[in-house]
Amino acid sequence: MAFYSVIPAGGFGTRLWPLSRPERPKFLLDLTGSGATLLQQTQARLSPVSDGIIVITGQAHRAQVISQLPEMDPSDVLTEPSGRDSMAAIGLAAAVLLERHPDEDVIIGSFAADHVIGDVDSFQAALGYAIEAARSDYIVTLGIRPRGPSTAFGYIHFADELIAGAPAHRVLSFVEKPDAIRAAEYLATGQYRWNAGMYVMRAQVLLDHLARLQPSLHAGLRAIAACWDTPERDEELARYWGGLTRISIDHAISEPLAPQGRVAMVEGDFDWDDVGDFDSLAQIASSAEGVSVVNNGGPLQVVNHRSDGALVVNATDGLAPIVAISEVPGIVIVNAGDVLLVTTREAAQQVKQISQLVTDQDTQGNAEHKR
Amino acid sequence: MAFYSVIPAGGFGTRLWPLSRPERPKFLLDLTGSGATLLQQTQARLSPVSDGIIVITGQAHRAQVISQLPEMDPSDVLTEPSGRDSMAAIGLAAAVLLERHPDEDVIIGSFAADHVIGDVDSFQAALGYAIEAARSDYIVTLGIRPRGPSTAFGYIHFADELIAGAPAHRVLSFVEKPDAIRAAEYLATGQYRWNAGMYVMRAQVLLDHLARLQPSLHAGLRAIAACWDTPERDEELARYWGGLTRISIDHAISEPLAPQGRVAMVEGDFDWDDVGDFDSLAQIASSAEGVSVVNNGGPLQVVNHRSDGALVVNATDGLAPIVAISEVPGIVIVNAGDVLLVTTREAAQQVKQISQLVTDQDTQGNAEHKR
Repeated sequence: MAFYSVIPAGGFGTRLWPLSRPERPKFLLDLTGSGATLLQQTQARLSPVSDGIIVITGQAHRAQVISQLPEMDPSDVLTEPSGRDSMAAIGLAAAVLLERHPDEDVIIGSFAADHVIGDVDSFQAALGYAIEAARSDYIVTLGIRPRGPSTAFGYIHFADELIAGAPAHRVLSFVEKPDAIRAAEYLATGQYRWNAGMYVMRAQVLLDHLARLQPSLHAGLRAIAACWDTPERDEELARYWGGLTRISIDHAISEPLAPQGRVAMVEGDFDWDDVGDFDSLAQIASSAEGVSVVNNGGPLQVVNHRSDGALVVNATDGLAPIVAISEVPGIVIVNAGDVLLVTTREAAQQVKQISQLVTDQDTQGNAEHKR
Repeated sequence: MAFYSVIPAGGFGTRLWPLSRPERPKFLLDLTGSGATLLQQTQARLSPVSDGIIVITGQAHRAQVISQLPEMDPSDVLTEPSGRDSMAAIGLAAAVLLERHPDEDVIIGSFAADHVIGDVDSFQAALGYAIEAARSDYIVTLGIRPRGPSTAFGYIHFADELIAGAPAHRVLSFVEKPDAIRAAEYLATGQYRWNAGMYVMRAQVLLDHLARLQPSLHAGLRAIAACWDTPERDEELARYWGGLTRISIDHAISEPLAPQGRVAMVEGDFDWDDVGDFDSLAQIASSAEGVSVVNNGGPLQVVNHRSDGALVVNATDGLAPIVAISEVPGIVIVNAGDVLLVTTREAAQQVKQISQLVTDQDTQGNAEHKR
């Protein structure tokens, strides 16, 4: 048996603008001020427990990915011509791994490049159980113990019974992001966990399910994978990639298979967050005197007067060395060098709108300038 | 008759921190982004209607005052060894002017160095009437037409009758800053105006009143003035200055004289503000798309999403060229280079507290550093 980690490094992180940009997406950022980017953190926590790692990313970010992960063989960074959703990315990695290791029992685990995990030991232990359960041909997911009735995540509904000779539960179903009332009901039952989109399974099992459930997508991926390490790669990509079905691995595989009893869940009791917006970042960032601070720039002191729950992010140099906040609890102050964003944690979901306004005005400004 | 403008350039502007600092007080700042500091604006609006200008300031700011007013003769910048309130400053200027111009009928007008006036023509016209009334030996004040029932200013209660052969009213009394209910009552009568602390009078009349009402202060000022332009100035200052009574011109002169019918008020219908805090600055700063912006630094674009009434001040370079504000109506963002302040217009009065917190932490930090 050989375990390979697959890291789809895509997604923009629109609600983390102006930190996150199309040319500098969330996974390439040191969002938590830890000294490592989310991609580097993801690689670091998987590397000790993996026989190999595959990163799948877009052409625009390939050079930065390789530069951030200097110990990786660039041939293990697969480049997608365009984003075709997670099933194509993970399926391609699975197929390429099977081509490269025809004599191994290849188990893969897929993990987003832009999530944050607090307790790495606990994560790695859970991953060990998931690999164990995957050897019994289950699609295995890691179910995150909910910190509260979040409406930002999907949930995994699981059965009490243990299966697969491991501390794994049968998954009854996956449920989409609920409203607050249903989320609270889920939590009250004790039978629901957050779906972090982490899947562990035999590569062959995944591709066999795919052949049955999404035959055309499967055929395209197999044809591309067969030529991946040959001079014909670009030709095959050009032929098939643009026509591949856009579908997530959740919709393609785990949701349809759960009612058939083919999906298992291992309990993940580590801290996990997808850092989807500034409210979430404020919760996981280091906090002192009531204020969360992420600083990747010069010296920064935050002085708080009746502004508990505030978040100050300095992504670069250029912010004043003292940020004084008075009577603005929950304020969010983000310096990205070219843009200073001021908003609130409560309005964290509306960041898309202000980023759109700025982009529109930029475009307008340029248009006017050109006239 | 000769008219001299007297400009006491003192006061710190604590509620405009971090723009205003002990070493860089409000009057030395281009608070409105007009290209001229408040002191320069004050001098510019008085210069065309004055036969001379006297500025009184502290030792710490003398060099900056002279540098900001290059056309002034440095001997017209009087330096106080320490602040002894407005009566000492204005009284000294009056006494020095009488020493320098013994054969002239000297009328003086005193005007704070850190106020903002919108309509200079209207101000100068009102000043002309005030000078006219002062020739009848009145203490003349300019009464500002209230923009609303402000609780931040004192009020002038005046009688309908015109006096002094000019469009001037007799002042019945001066009243301290009222509460909101009384302020509204004042406005309803039509017999109250804002007291901007602008006084016009014969220098001799002022000093005669002073001799009667504050004889010791008068004697000290006269002694100092007699030696001002001689080598004995420093000696006389050392002898008298520290013992001069600390009192404002309002308390020393205008309040006691009003009931005696010796104070007249000319109506000032120009826009006036003392720019006491960021709420006031937001009202007078130029506004576009719902946001007030003062920019003395590099290019600055403010993008507003549901944040009307916000104020963005960039006192220097170093702020990001785009400030994006989302869902924070009435937010105040002030970049002073070394400090970024974020607060609200509603909390404008609490700026003293956050500035104190920052100063305390600075002192602490330095103390720790020294150990």
